[in-house]
Amino acid sequence: MLETSLPIIAFDADDTLWPNEDYFREGEQEMLKLLRPYYQGDDLLDKLYQQEIKNLGIFGYGAKGFTLSMIESLIELSQGKVSGDDIQAVINIGKSIMTCPIKLLPNVRETIESLKEFGYRLMIITKGDLFDQESKIARSGLADLFDIIEIVSEKDEENYQRLFKKYNITVNNFWMVGNSLKSDILPVVRLGGHGVYIPYASTWVHEAVSAEEATEHNYFELTSISGLPDLLFNEYHNQL
Amino acid sequence: MLETSLPIIAFDADDTLWPNEDYFREGEQEMLKLLRPYYQGDDLLDKLYQQEIKNLGIFGYGAKGFTLSMIESLIELSQGKVSGDDIQAVINIGKSIMTCPIKLLPNVRETIESLKEFGYRLMIITKGDLFDQESKIARSGLADLFDIIEIVSEKDEENYQRLFKKYNITVNNFWMVGNSLKSDILPVVRLGGHGVYIPYASTWVHEAVSAEEATEHNYFELTSISGLPDLLFNEYHNQL
Repeated sequence: MLETSLPIIAFDADDTLWPNEDYFREGEQEMLKLLRPYYQGDDLLDKLYQQEIKNLGIFGYGAKGFTLSMIESLIELSQGKVSGDDIQAVINIGKSIMTCPIKLLPNVRETIESLKEFGYRLMIITKGDLFDQESKIARSGLADLFDIIEIVSEKDEENYQRLFKKYNITVNNFWMVGNSLKSDILPVVRLGGHGVYIPYASTWVHEAVSAEEATEHNYFELTSISGLPDLLFNEYHNQL
Repeated sequence: MLETSLPIIAFDADDTLWPNEDYFREGEQEMLKLLRPYYQGDDLLDKLYQQEIKNLGIFGYGAKGFTLSMIESLIELSQGKVSGDDIQAVINIGKSIMTCPIKLLPNVRETIESLKEFGYRLMIITKGDLFDQESKIARSGLADLFDIIEIVSEKDEENYQRLFKKYNITVNNFWMVGNSLKSDILPVVRLGGHGVYIPYASTWVHEAVSAEEATEHNYFELTSISGLPDLLFNEYHNQL
């Protein structure tokens, strides 16, 4: 397929193909309930976020690191008074995020199937915990529709370039579809590829970018993945 | 390089290129000290191992899952009485495993360099946590010597076959070097590839195989990685 001039379409997974952030936010809400008896300040969520960011360089992304950071916050904010049962409750919240059912977002399966039928080469490029992501892709039932699945620890220009080299991809033939301007769109557009931004209802603070950063670069924006085949078709014919 | 008939040599990383298991075992010893006030039974280590195995399907391999399992054991065995400080101590043990310095095992760098010089195509195939493993490979200073680095969630026949397909590898041209009969040697030998077993001082119980399983298949055994160039050279010339 790489021999054809048809574009290569890569998809982010979490919150692009299926909801994910919601599960973390629900986990956080459960966590707030656990913490409330130990800590009454109204900067609880902010403190949790700070703990996550502090640990990102050691834990990386994903539900296991999130769970460990939640436990650390609980210990710190309770000044060590937290009970064993409450810690176990946090671990159980983490486990429920790790094993949550994967329900595809609307129109995802039909859109991917029609792109596949049209002959596009399809990829998943997702970041996070290898075991988590493999498990989610398997549970999604979509794995067979993709030619290449890559799980990376960080979606930055360096890692995208590594993938272009690995798969012999011409950058202006590459389209990345995702819900994160920071991870999916801007690094790809900076490298000369195409970005299709499909915002999701909730975005993790860490993935947010400033309005200046966002408008500095050209990318497409869709409200639903179902608009993708037409967008690609039109752009492809414009280029011919 | 794939065009030449020179073998492709893949290396396991943990306990093949650098020590790893030792750090986990030291972590366990620290953990035993923390647990002793709460639980006096002499089946402590066994209980910890059972907890790890129970969680393997949710957490996968690696230091983050290990840490979460240690915390669960501590809560369970202390009947919920564990203090917040002791849980934090467990997390700190986990973090020290995740950030430990990477010291290469004896003769590793020289051997890899001489194989590289000889023109072999070199791979790392390691299992575990993506973020951990990438970080360790980066810290090892060896990354540039390898043509392909693959981090997988499980080293079984299915995943090896997937890699053979992905990189267009002829199985009888493939050599896997590692310290785990279960993960590095037996699945490769079963598929028709070559295995070079270099035992490491300590092997995790989960990676142990029975004597029958081990003798059922043909593989090479070396006491040090430094014997590898001669072994490959002799075998290569025998095949010509």
